[in-house]
Amino acid sequence: MNRLYHMTLSPYCRKVRLTLAEKRMEVELVEERYWEKSPEFMRRNPAGKVPILRYEGMLMTESQAICEFLDEIAPEPRLLPQDPMGRYEVRRLCSWFDDKFNEEVSGPIMNERVWKKVRKEGYPDSRTVKGGLAAIKYHIDYMDWLLNERRWLAGDMMSLADFTAAAHLSCLDYISDVDWNRSRNVKDWYAKIKSRPAFRSLLADQLPGMRPSPQYAELDF
Amino acid sequence: MNRLYHMTLSPYCRKVRLTLAEKRMEVELVEERYWEKSPEFMRRNPAGKVPILRYEGMLMTESQAICEFLDEIAPEPRLLPQDPMGRYEVRRLCSWFDDKFNEEVSGPIMNERVWKKVRKEGYPDSRTVKGGLAAIKYHIDYMDWLLNERRWLAGDMMSLADFTAAAHLSCLDYISDVDWNRSRNVKDWYAKIKSRPAFRSLLADQLPGMRPSPQYAELDF
Repeated sequence: MNRLYHMTLSPYCRKVRLTLAEKRMEVELVEERYWEKSPEFMRRNPAGKVPILRYEGMLMTESQAICEFLDEIAPEPRLLPQDPMGRYEVRRLCSWFDDKFNEEVSGPIMNERVWKKVRKEGYPDSRTVKGGLAAIKYHIDYMDWLLNERRWLAGDMMSLADFTAAAHLSCLDYISDVDWNRSRNVKDWYAKIKSRPAFRSLLADQLPGMRPSPQYAELDF
Repeated sequence: MNRLYHMTLSPYCRKVRLTLAEKRMEVELVEERYWEKSPEFMRRNPAGKVPILRYEGMLMTESQAICEFLDEIAPEPRLLPQDPMGRYEVRRLCSWFDDKFNEEVSGPIMNERVWKKVRKEGYPDSRTVKGGLAAIKYHIDYMDWLLNERRWLAGDMMSLADFTAAAHLSCLDYISDVDWNRSRNVKDWYAKIKSRPAFRSLLADQLPGMRPSPQYAELDF
């Protein structure tokens, strides 16, 4: 059986999990505390990162490359449109969230509020957290602006861009750091994506010693 | 005419320039000192980054998304193979260089040795430079290992993975920070890619106040 080495609240792992689930590809989930760099894990992946997908005996890394591969070998339902400009827009937004949003928002907030605790690395730095919480407003406003014109983030079809954004936002929602009242558009979009069967496994996630926020698993939030 | 807003020694801009040139798509190059955040520039791209490609009136950002778009609309010569596993390998290596190599090597070294000087932000931090120069060895060894089995980085055809790697290495070569004697395979690979007509415009680059290293533009180095 195919296997995904992952970590519970990693947006990059969640993006792959959503893609696999949406395409009904079964996979065994194996949690990997990658920062402990166990010799066996480092042999699998010298880059020392998750996700790693073991697919037909091959070890695959890099979430965007994995998701595009999955979309090519299992095209139903399609997560990238077929016209080049539509595909460009999906990829642009994937980079937006995986690079820019991660750097400004999800990376610093999750690091301070979750990973430092899990790895016993001390207390969160409140200035860093505040910076992330200030930056998320601008990103939600940008999503709001996109969703004024579009049904989904990259256009009229649900795409990998939506999964990428939802992967990051769902991690922040676990620790209650998303102000869903800031934009009706964004809240409606998240409600739509959260109620998909592919999302269920994410909503069942539990990080030991850290309960999810009350609205985390609620479809009506 | 299409236009590329770029900065001389940016690997991400170089990757797009190589792709455009390889496909013989003419483009007007406009240098943009993006860190000065001129109001006109910020209107074009609220993310405040280069490259930006103005293509048929549209403004496009994110180098990987742009290059894949160009490969789809102008398929000759093809920069991604047609089989899903081959495409995965190209994309995996693009992420390897654009994320990991940039974070460990080209980002810190270029920032300390070039951008601080250009932006008048003080002197290079020698510990950061040393860290980058230590990390590059491991990356060259990894490339050496790949090139033992393959003609090009991702397989038997030249691909976007080669352009991505060459874009980063060529910036470091401008300031003489690549030890080409570490690997015969890597040196031969770089000589092959450097001698392509698409590379010429990069080899003519000059950053004001900072001369390129003597071997930078030499095809026989």
